[in-house]
Amino acid sequence: MDFQPRLDDIQHILTAVLDTPAQLQALPPFAEVDADLMQQVQEEAGKFVASEIAPLQRIGDETGCRFDAGVVTAPPGFRQAYQAFWQGGWPSLACATEDGGQGLPAVLEAVLYEMLSAANHGWTMAPGLLHGAYECLKHHGSEELKARYLGKIATGEWLATMCLTEPHAGSDLGLVRTKATPQGDGYRVSGTKIFISGGEHDLTDNIVHLVLARLPDAPAGPKGLSLFLAPKFLPDGSRNPIVCERIEEKMGLHGSPTCVMRFDDATGWLVGEPNRGLNAMFVMMNAARMHVGLQGIGLLEAAWQKASAYAQERRQMRAPGASGTSLIAEHPAIQRMLDTQRAWIDGGRVLAYRTAVELDIAKHHADATRRESAQRWCSLVTPVLKSAWTHQAFHGGSECLQVFGGHGYVREWGIEQIVRDARVAMIYEGTNEIQAIDLLVRKVLPDGGAALSALLQELTEALDAQQPAQAAVLQRFGAVRDLAAQLSRANAQQAELAYWVADDFLRAVALALLGWAWTRIEAASPVDTAATRWTAPARALKDWILPEFDMRLQIIRGQLERVHPAQA
Amino acid sequence: MDFQPRLDDIQHILTAVLDTPAQLQALPPFAEVDADLMQQVQEEAGKFVASEIAPLQRIGDETGCRFDAGVVTAPPGFRQAYQAFWQGGWPSLACATEDGGQGLPAVLEAVLYEMLSAANHGWTMAPGLLHGAYECLKHHGSEELKARYLGKIATGEWLATMCLTEPHAGSDLGLVRTKATPQGDGYRVSGTKIFISGGEHDLTDNIVHLVLARLPDAPAGPKGLSLFLAPKFLPDGSRNPIVCERIEEKMGLHGSPTCVMRFDDATGWLVGEPNRGLNAMFVMMNAARMHVGLQGIGLLEAAWQKASAYAQERRQMRAPGASGTSLIAEHPAIQRMLDTQRAWIDGGRVLAYRTAVELDIAKHHADATRRESAQRWCSLVTPVLKSAWTHQAFHGGSECLQVFGGHGYVREWGIEQIVRDARVAMIYEGTNEIQAIDLLVRKVLPDGGAALSALLQELTEALDAQQPAQAAVLQRFGAVRDLAAQLSRANAQQAELAYWVADDFLRAVALALLGWAWTRIEAASPVDTAATRWTAPARALKDWILPEFDMRLQIIRGQLERVHPAQA
Repeated sequence: MDFQPRLDDIQHILTAVLDTPAQLQALPPFAEVDADLMQQVQEEAGKFVASEIAPLQRIGDETGCRFDAGVVTAPPGFRQAYQAFWQGGWPSLACATEDGGQGLPAVLEAVLYEMLSAANHGWTMAPGLLHGAYECLKHHGSEELKARYLGKIATGEWLATMCLTEPHAGSDLGLVRTKATPQGDGYRVSGTKIFISGGEHDLTDNIVHLVLARLPDAPAGPKGLSLFLAPKFLPDGSRNPIVCERIEEKMGLHGSPTCVMRFDDATGWLVGEPNRGLNAMFVMMNAARMHVGLQGIGLLEAAWQKASAYAQERRQMRAPGASGTSLIAEHPAIQRMLDTQRAWIDGGRVLAYRTAVELDIAKHHADATRRESAQRWCSLVTPVLKSAWTHQAFHGGSECLQVFGGHGYVREWGIEQIVRDARVAMIYEGTNEIQAIDLLVRKVLPDGGAALSALLQELTEALDAQQPAQAAVLQRFGAVRDLAAQLSRANAQQAELAYWVADDFLRAVALALLGWAWTRIEAASPVDTAATRWTAPARALKDWILPEFDMRLQIIRGQLERVHPAQA
Repeated sequence: MDFQPRLDDIQHILTAVLDTPAQLQALPPFAEVDADLMQQVQEEAGKFVASEIAPLQRIGDETGCRFDAGVVTAPPGFRQAYQAFWQGGWPSLACATEDGGQGLPAVLEAVLYEMLSAANHGWTMAPGLLHGAYECLKHHGSEELKARYLGKIATGEWLATMCLTEPHAGSDLGLVRTKATPQGDGYRVSGTKIFISGGEHDLTDNIVHLVLARLPDAPAGPKGLSLFLAPKFLPDGSRNPIVCERIEEKMGLHGSPTCVMRFDDATGWLVGEPNRGLNAMFVMMNAARMHVGLQGIGLLEAAWQKASAYAQERRQMRAPGASGTSLIAEHPAIQRMLDTQRAWIDGGRVLAYRTAVELDIAKHHADATRRESAQRWCSLVTPVLKSAWTHQAFHGGSECLQVFGGHGYVREWGIEQIVRDARVAMIYEGTNEIQAIDLLVRKVLPDGGAALSALLQELTEALDAQQPAQAAVLQRFGAVRDLAAQLSRANAQQAELAYWVADDFLRAVALALLGWAWTRIEAASPVDTAATRWTAPARALKDWILPEFDMRLQIIRGQLERVHPAQA
């Protein structure tokens, strides 16, 4: 069974729950973007994903990418699908019209990439970095570079890579050794990069590499890194000496070539200021992190769809209270696993789509204060989305596999592929542990929790303390705020503490936000008890998911007590 | 890096913590088995595992088993290693001397299989069912069948299978359709079985299949199943019509052929009474479940070894409080993941080795009451071991993968293989959800929790309520007993409830027992703060693992409240 986009679910969150069209229409560039147009784009996107991309899911895994003497061949059908994708204008959905894009809101791109990831994670890696590369070049590239490359990247005619990691420099980019020496109007780049998704392939006629490297006089550490653009083919048509040495054998994601790339005095041009490469790259990484969160939601939806369909078909044993053998969907252990994933998917969509809207608000809102609060949302929520939803894609995907019993472990049903593919999303674009440190150590502690507190305060305003579920959300928000304050105080005395509890803190924030998201869903959804579409996941949320919040508090308080035995 | 048995750790649990040698020497058959002999056997086993089995781990995954027109070829080296294994007397370690076995305690076999699973899960599947088949045939086979097959199975010269599952009958064996019709001194068996580990291979010269089937006049459902023995080659040397139709493509465990087996009027003989096949098979399944729990411990140890070695080698970023880049083992997020797995491994060994000892006590102790309490231990603890430790092998294995960052996702380091291999153990021999139902619905609720309460009471006697960690164990035991009683009462009113909370109940019992196991480890281990071997996992247990106990209570209480809004 191939993945099928379920646009009703997505539309419900976008429109009924988040009122997205009205919010976007208030922004000058999107004055013409009404609910009808948004729905039309989603429907076309859904058709494209279902007909062109989803059917390539298994061949991407089974045939995978082939490597032969530096040449990488994508799985059968991948190039054709990619050509149709960029020629259909999909990569440029949210790029500016002056760059050849369609100038539509980011949230439409978010929906597209969620569906693409659900349909075919491996294929989706190819265009996954495009938008980040576009933003990076748009904001940091010289006019000359932009003239040559921005349009090609905006339309997706050429694909882009992000060349950061080196064998000895994984999470720690300060250790990067690749060198760039000035020559002519550009630089000669030399060094070896690993884990380069799409470093080499036959999907497009050229590949644009964005490479972190050091200038000759650069200081050591992360503040000595500069960013360079180095294309596979130079403007004169000659091949730049950028060699794919091998592709990795991986647990999954076989549809995406993970390359070891050697730059042998390759010609490149500086993007942005010297020694400010990380700064330019962060534009790209933030976009990428948001995309990875969407991958998590998409992969979980794909896993849920398969498991749910199977559970509605397979009969085994008598469910309690039934007579004769039952559909396995009727067994409590199975219902629970399925509904739990739905609660994460639906709540994740609320947070992810809102993040996409806030991205546009941060850029285009007339009011500076509102732009700032949008920026705050993106900064705080992105690591939470990336970490908690990729965690859930893998672990919840594994629960979906469990629904199949032994059949889940064999290739036939395709569920084990999703679990293998999903595992990488907990690692790339900053491991989930690094996301947790990003949230707590870099974004919450420095201002004593003020920004997070302000974000929660905004959400609080629409909550009604008289409704039990909403009162519980208020209580969780209060607990998170208290924790942030306590951790800030304790941090002054023992800086190590935050690193021990960063994961728990991120989980607590994720659960608090998930609980909030569901109050929005419940407020906007039919609660007819006969229609379990929204009530069943709401029950799962309350019964099986949210109890983890108190556990995280208990863990963090236990650690606070180690610092202040009396106070915590 | 191949897996290396760490006998010091195992010895510490067996001797210092559990005082196993003295307990076993009190049983008549093991009067001569002293600590020296036990240690000697373990050392030899460790050498064999390290030199013969561990080096075949990767080839088993990469080359896998090959299928060609009904013939299955094991990966290179597998047959040779298996021949050395049985000729070395390893399968018969705990078989009775009168059957050609060595008459040693079951716990030595447990240690052997834990190490084998750690070294090479795929290869270990082959002999994994031998001991169960031996016990099944010994207790239920006719003298004639035993004369022909028991010795071959005891020594492992011939391997055995367990043919239960059919395409439409997975967890629900009552749906089995395979037929057996009387003919001559035996039966003709016809039907198709799936998921048959080692259904066909070239490791041994014959394969002995134990097959669930229905006699012509058998009632429907599970009480109409009989057990038959059908060998690949009949006593006259002719081939029995038992055909391997294909082997499955799986997520992992490629070293073990998972076969679809067709019985085409195959000759078989009844094992045990007609229509009592499940009864005979359960002997085998209980042994198998205990083995799967040991697989969980072994796989987690293998994953931990790899991750720990990597973390002691790889430098990335500055750990809090350090200067310059640090070993990743020094980063709190990494330490926490590693120490958490160790707490599960060490505590799991206490419970698993004790279960093995109780198995022998149940058979050989002079006192009937003691035999009964041993039987109770095995009955209650086996599903907990199977479920909680296979869960941990996969999820904790995934945390070990995370320690490697991007390198964990590629094949090179071997950690992703362990995660893929481990996933199946949550499914086979009864899914983990079925273990949870077995524990709560079949074993705890029927007597109102009396047996579980008696088991916990025995453990309580050695605990000191003045010591904080032990007082916490007592508290958890009390909470489990209360829950069992409350659930028994609520069950009378709403039988469905238990099925909703069975997983949480099993987790609560697992955590309560894990906490107890660690009080035993702490009482027997050096607590010098300089030696972190036992103190670091003890901290992880308290700080990161045991808080889940309260969460499980909260979840179960939430469900109890749905039945009795006031009482819970």
